[in-house]
Amino acid sequence: MNASLRGIVAYPITPFTDAGRVDERLLARIVDDMLAAGVHALAPLGSTGVLPYLSDDEREAVAETVVKRVAGRVPTLVGVSALTTERTVHHARHAERVGASAVMIIPMSYWKLTDAEIVAHFDRVARAISIPIAVYNNPATGGLDLAPDTLARLLQIANVTMVKESTGDVHRMHRLVQLCGEDVAFYNGSNPLALAALVAGARGWCTAAPHVIPRLNLELYEAVTRGDLAGARRSFYRQLPFLQFIVAHGLPRAIAAALELCGTPVGPLRAPLRPLEPERVAELRRILVDLGVLPAA
Amino acid sequence: MNASLRGIVAYPITPFTDAGRVDERLLARIVDDMLAAGVHALAPLGSTGVLPYLSDDEREAVAETVVKRVAGRVPTLVGVSALTTERTVHHARHAERVGASAVMIIPMSYWKLTDAEIVAHFDRVARAISIPIAVYNNPATGGLDLAPDTLARLLQIANVTMVKESTGDVHRMHRLVQLCGEDVAFYNGSNPLALAALVAGARGWCTAAPHVIPRLNLELYEAVTRGDLAGARRSFYRQLPFLQFIVAHGLPRAIAAALELCGTPVGPLRAPLRPLEPERVAELRRILVDLGVLPAA
Amino acid sequence: MNASLRGIVAYPITPFTDAGRVDERLLARIVDDMLAAGVHALAPLGSTGVLPYLSDDEREAVAETVVKRVAGRVPTLVGVSALTTERTVHHARHAERVGASAVMIIPMSYWKLTDAEIVAHFDRVARAISIPIAVYNNPATGGLDLAPDTLARLLQIANVTMVKESTGDVHRMHRLVQLCGEDVAFYNGSNPLALAALVAGARGWCTAAPHVIPRLNLELYEAVTRGDLAGARRSFYRQLPFLQFIVAHGLPRAIAAALELCGTPVGPLRAPLRPLEPERVAELRRILVDLGVLPAA
Amino acid sequence: MNASLRGIVAYPITPFTDAGRVDERLLARIVDDMLAAGVHALAPLGSTGVLPYLSDDEREAVAETVVKRVAGRVPTLVGVSALTTERTVHHARHAERVGASAVMIIPMSYWKLTDAEIVAHFDRVARAISIPIAVYNNPATGGLDLAPDTLARLLQIANVTMVKESTGDVHRMHRLVQLCGEDVAFYNGSNPLALAALVAGARGWCTAAPHVIPRLNLELYEAVTRGDLAGARRSFYRQLPFLQFIVAHGLPRAIAAALELCGTPVGPLRAPLRPLEPERVAELRRILVDLGVLPAA
Repeated sequence: MNASLRGIVAYPITPFTDAGRVDERLLARIVDDMLAAGVHALAPLGSTGVLPYLSDDEREAVAETVVKRVAGRVPTLVGVSALTTERTVHHARHAERVGASAVMIIPMSYWKLTDAEIVAHFDRVARAISIPIAVYNNPATGGLDLAPDTLARLLQIANVTMVKESTGDVHRMHRLVQLCGEDVAFYNGSNPLALAALVAGARGWCTAAPHVIPRLNLELYEAVTRGDLAGARRSFYRQLPFLQFIVAHGLPRAIAAALELCGTPVGPLRAPLRPLEPERVAELRRILVDLGVLPAA
Repeated sequence: MNASLRGIVAYPITPFTDAGRVDERLLARIVDDMLAAGVHALAPLGSTGVLPYLSDDEREAVAETVVKRVAGRVPTLVGVSALTTERTVHHARHAERVGASAVMIIPMSYWKLTDAEIVAHFDRVARAISIPIAVYNNPATGGLDLAPDTLARLLQIANVTMVKESTGDVHRMHRLVQLCGEDVAFYNGSNPLALAALVAGARGWCTAAPHVIPRLNLELYEAVTRGDLAGARRSFYRQLPFLQFIVAHGLPRAIAAALELCGTPVGPLRAPLRPLEPERVAELRRILVDLGVLPAA
Repeated sequence: MNASLRGIVAYPITPFTDAGRVDERLLARIVDDMLAAGVHALAPLGSTGVLPYLSDDEREAVAETVVKRVAGRVPTLVGVSALTTERTVHHARHAERVGASAVMIIPMSYWKLTDAEIVAHFDRVARAISIPIAVYNNPATGGLDLAPDTLARLLQIANVTMVKESTGDVHRMHRLVQLCGEDVAFYNGSNPLALAALVAGARGWCTAAPHVIPRLNLELYEAVTRGDLAGARRSFYRQLPFLQFIVAHGLPRAIAAALELCGTPVGPLRAPLRPLEPERVAELRRILVDLGVLPAA
Repeated sequence: MNASLRGIVAYPITPFTDAGRVDERLLARIVDDMLAAGVHALAPLGSTGVLPYLSDDEREAVAETVVKRVAGRVPTLVGVSALTTERTVHHARHAERVGASAVMIIPMSYWKLTDAEIVAHFDRVARAISIPIAVYNNPATGGLDLAPDTLARLLQIANVTMVKESTGDVHRMHRLVQLCGEDVAFYNGSNPLALAALVAGARGWCTAAPHVIPRLNLELYEAVTRGDLAGARRSFYRQLPFLQFIVAHGLPRAIAAALELCGTPVGPLRAPLRPLEPERVAELRRILVDLGVLPAA
């Protein structure tokens, strides 16, 4: 699968009912909306999908709902990360069983892991499944920072074939290309780095923004792809305030608020997460008005 | 309870059988050893006890084993942290039910929490139980950094009465005293800061070192308590290499290796954690020989 | 002048005679070489030119030598930074007197300066001269970090018209464009960020690399200018090892070593700076061989 | 000299006349006041003395004024740092000539120096003079951070006999003692670390605070010396707000404002440094009123 994955990889949130249960019906509708908009892949149970805050049953319900709804129309990358190796293997096997195209794993830490521990962790999961694995590096959430050297080492494990880099540091991407060659399948996970990352050679952009501005996200990707630098720059600066906002205030909070502003409430956030404060919502509304997503009031 | 808690708060590891189950018999023996050595409190399910890597059932078994074994001889502070507020409340209630003197909570993050979220999290737990709560700050493991201002704010919640500060930054302790007064019940959780923290006014020292060198830990605490600065300094520098080592290499790995060197194997570490490499073990052996804990070979 | 400055802004080193005096003859030759290669501007007395290690007399000699030799063929930006405002004004006036097109100022700190102090510093210099000023931000050398907000504030001073950003953080450039508009005249001073910065809208690239690989530097700039993304990326990755090397080991040391390898020794470095160690020189030689600058031996 | 230096090492500011010249008469009076208060050594031309902002002539005038005025009553440590090795040697020789007991050198950077460069720098100065050298580590001002290993290496140079550590990190002091033995002559240069540093074994406290609260500074030092921990802690927390303030706002600015509040204006700061803003001065006044230094208004 991974050989061909390019473009916008969309990260659906996990919507909840008022009672705090996963709202599978709304999740399916969100998947439909994203597919209708033209995204190139779906990645449930990412950071935006509040993976670590879900019970095992909830995780499996989300994985199944999304993979079934996508029904092979685009690839699905299912997040299967857990603190222990045993639980990660468990979820990876489940993802494969329900038909995921690939799994995505962020090594979550409590105790900082050594490189040997990280390699053994991925190696154990890789031997337990036969679909590809994407390594996800995001020290700001997972607490572990995988240097380019470590990422390169992980890419030598048989079915570890992709990297999602979310540090927002373009120099890491340069190093990755230098270490692994120009064909390395790396994807950008830091929204405000989208332009620089695609120019540096990223195959795609992993983002929750398509909940709200899918056309702008696709427009930027396509402009870079066809070498239209002026168009890419224009598109990037246009959507940048939205990208900065959702990163600054946490994707689940910010995307939930944006969807609510757009008429699709997605239920309560799971505590300890709480909704954006009203001043922030007002700021977000202004950004969405500027983008033409919301009417001018 | 908290009004009187002073001294060495010992953190037992969670030992496992070869099959990877919690070894409750060995855990009880470790508790006995620590009490026999004279520690002033026991704190199961801390970072050393690999709390986040245990299942709910395992956590409850550890809490029950330790609290029952201590049987009121010293206070028990049971770790009840979880990523969601709901699970934290669940474990806090369990700890109260089995007879813990207090609970200890590190706000674990995936998404960085706002101050309002952190306060609401503690507030919700505090309203669910009637025993005291110790706030545990350790950004290196939990991923969230509670500034002295935030800690002071949390101490205004009714039964939040203690702070364990593990950043290793003595200036934080100064700030805490300035914000909350000299009677603030704060404890040091950074081993190599033990001397500076006690001198700055910490009521106690939260440490896993009593698995191996309880007498030295108590000696340092007592020297400071009776104002013997020269003795305190001598004791501190003597045990410092051991304290630095266990922090540098991760408490569960280092304490497991030290116990094994001392003749008490505590079973496999839970993956992704792995045992110390042989060179590190050799280094640890030298430190323990220097301290007279192991014979010179 | 600044309205039109675009492209490669070359930073000549300050060569010394064996006796440790500024070698004005060799400096003039270096200027000639750079102009012959086609660079778009010359910037003597930058970090590469070891400005802070020169006496006042030496600084003035370098400024005069370069400006006279360029003789108006391209713009000259003369570094006039000093720790005190009084000395900065002194050197800025001298640069104007000898015919510099503009001056470049990095606010060097010993004591961290407040924003008000930084603004007053630039304001005082600006009122003392009538040629444009480029603000140079490079916390790694100057010790002060000017945030995009501060840079935007400085750009409101009458003849402060340009910014050289050397943090290597493309997000700063995005912020600058957002704060000042797309016409803001900013230049990239971090060699390994050249591609990302030009794509983000930098008007030029301030670099010492044209001492050795002027054609590659120009090729990258031109590829971006004409919207040839594939060509720009290819050119960038080709020269990246050299760019990373000279930044990692300090521009004066690395450029001096490279010039010596290429047959142009530039004299002793001024102590405490010392020449690259032999292993580093061997590494640099390999990079230059790979680039075709040196024969394969 | 260094064998015996213990206690409060006072750092006089450099006062200026209204015309911006060094006010040697007032400087002599400040020296007298400090000696009358009982400080154990005087260290002109430190960070507080705005060393890097003075011309060579001014530096020499300050050194001479202070050394002559002290007239051997206590040791004098004269700051002789400069960016180049040649200028550092020049000032070190001058300090020796005018009778300084020792010189103090902070390796100031523009380009980050390698360890080999730092060692060569100190070695060259050491061979040029015959009085002892104190290495001063303060990355926040000098821009270079000397790790404990590097400090230990420098202490092996013949007349490099003392270390002033100003990072405010007590763990560095622990490392230094571990590397060099308990007799290592290190001094604390971070005011808010005074208590922890003295307890850790620092021989003295380098501070500008004796301009304003010499008795409190001496009281803390003496309490630690005689092992009165309770008294030391009480004295420390009493003066801590003042110590935190002068560090937070820059010693030259804060000490100048405090002296002015106490009736001794010390003239304009040298630009780009500017006086404390009025709100800060009001805050400082409150601190001084609390300390009984100023009347309650």
